[in-house]
Amino acid sequence: MGKVYLIGAGPGAADLITVRGARLLAVADVVLHDALIEPAMLDYAPKARKIAVGKRCGKRSTAQHFINKQIVDAAREHGVVVRLKGGDPMLFGRADEEMRALEAAGIEYEIVPGITAALASAASLRRSLTLRGVSRSVALATHSRAADSAEIREQVNADSLVFYMGRDSAPEIAQQLMDAGRAGSTPVAIVEACSTPRERTLTLTLEGLAAGDAQLWLDPAQPSLLMIGDAFAERVLMSEPRADDSSSAASGERALRVA
Amino acid sequence: MGKVYLIGAGPGAADLITVRGARLLAVADVVLHDALIEPAMLDYAPKARKIAVGKRCGKRSTAQHFINKQIVDAAREHGVVVRLKGGDPMLFGRADEEMRALEAAGIEYEIVPGITAALASAASLRRSLTLRGVSRSVALATHSRAADSAEIREQVNADSLVFYMGRDSAPEIAQQLMDAGRAGSTPVAIVEACSTPRERTLTLTLEGLAAGDAQLWLDPAQPSLLMIGDAFAERVLMSEPRADDSSSAASGERALRVA
Repeated sequence: MGKVYLIGAGPGAADLITVRGARLLAVADVVLHDALIEPAMLDYAPKARKIAVGKRCGKRSTAQHFINKQIVDAAREHGVVVRLKGGDPMLFGRADEEMRALEAAGIEYEIVPGITAALASAASLRRSLTLRGVSRSVALATHSRAADSAEIREQVNADSLVFYMGRDSAPEIAQQLMDAGRAGSTPVAIVEACSTPRERTLTLTLEGLAAGDAQLWLDPAQPSLLMIGDAFAERVLMSEPRADDSSSAASGERALRVA
Repeated sequence: MGKVYLIGAGPGAADLITVRGARLLAVADVVLHDALIEPAMLDYAPKARKIAVGKRCGKRSTAQHFINKQIVDAAREHGVVVRLKGGDPMLFGRADEEMRALEAAGIEYEIVPGITAALASAASLRRSLTLRGVSRSVALATHSRAADSAEIREQVNADSLVFYMGRDSAPEIAQQLMDAGRAGSTPVAIVEACSTPRERTLTLTLEGLAAGDAQLWLDPAQPSLLMIGDAFAERVLMSEPRADDSSSAASGERALRVA
């Protein structure tokens, strides 16, 4: 019996996998990977048989069931089996189903975390998800068509909101957030195909998002992330810190330049 | 003028940094690192001068001000400057202050994301932060002493809650969440020193956390993460999936074993 490693591939760029993940790929006998994994990522695994197993989003239970079986079967034949998943396995990754299947089959496994898109997108945007005096909390969520605005308020609330797989329902999410009391002027950033050569970003407001302003811009073939909150506003630059400025009264020095 | 890389070191283990981060450390001239960085992480940077700059948590504004100046000064003298921060720079990392200082000084910089403790802790616990039918959203937050239970409900709400730097206020957080309507039986997992040789985990209930049951167990010298929600419950195992079971009616096969 082999051992299975559920590895987070990160947001896309091959070098945003962890060192541990890359080292395990180098010794893997089999790699079962999401179809959306960037091809360059698989170069870390020269000796492995690579098997594409379903899409990251929108796969049905029966497909997941078949993936589980493929992983278990691979572990019965090979020593090092890697299940390579986009992003992080524990966040919108359906790792639970795969862990259950491995536990039921008595197969040893380990989880290797990956950079989730929210972190990589914040890096691309150069906007911190948390921001002193502005944002102390972040919610990571998906949108359910069944949710109404009351539910969005109850279920998902934080200073910064990040919606995964929200492309098609972006106007609906924005409207529900405004109905729940968020200002129409709240900044929104959308990052598409984060960290890949196809990466694009769009900034607008919640009101604009609700009006559908992003929908023509969005590419249905690429993953995208909606980031909503005051932390995603344009940054007002402060003047350079001075060595002799030991007080925190530097706000008087604001240059009011926009990043 | 050099270029500055704000790099997330990840949760602790040296091999949980990204490949990109490790490669940049290898060519760095100077590394300004959080004091809490694991020493093995610095082995990636054999040729760099290493400077410990303040603790990850609890540093004061003036200290941050001095760190900003050190980064800017280093970039004026060296080609490749790495600012190595625990976890991810964009999440409770005060990257904003450093980005502002670099922008004000006209210094080129780039952010390299890191594995945040919530993801690494979920991997250690083998519990998915999101879980079909149980948890569709995750909030990442810190606790403010100024917050009351109404604020916790309003500001931070999601199916899974993760509190960073919540050790000392853990009973207070738990009590506020119960006051705001969370069941006392809600599962809680605490992961301390995640991914390091000192890693420990404790599972209890929200009621137990409120009663102070975790406080004697917690080590004040280690970082810890509070994870609260039904997604952190013990897993009830299902029997092994069968090749011929193409329906999703496998729930009838539940073996009711506990992980």
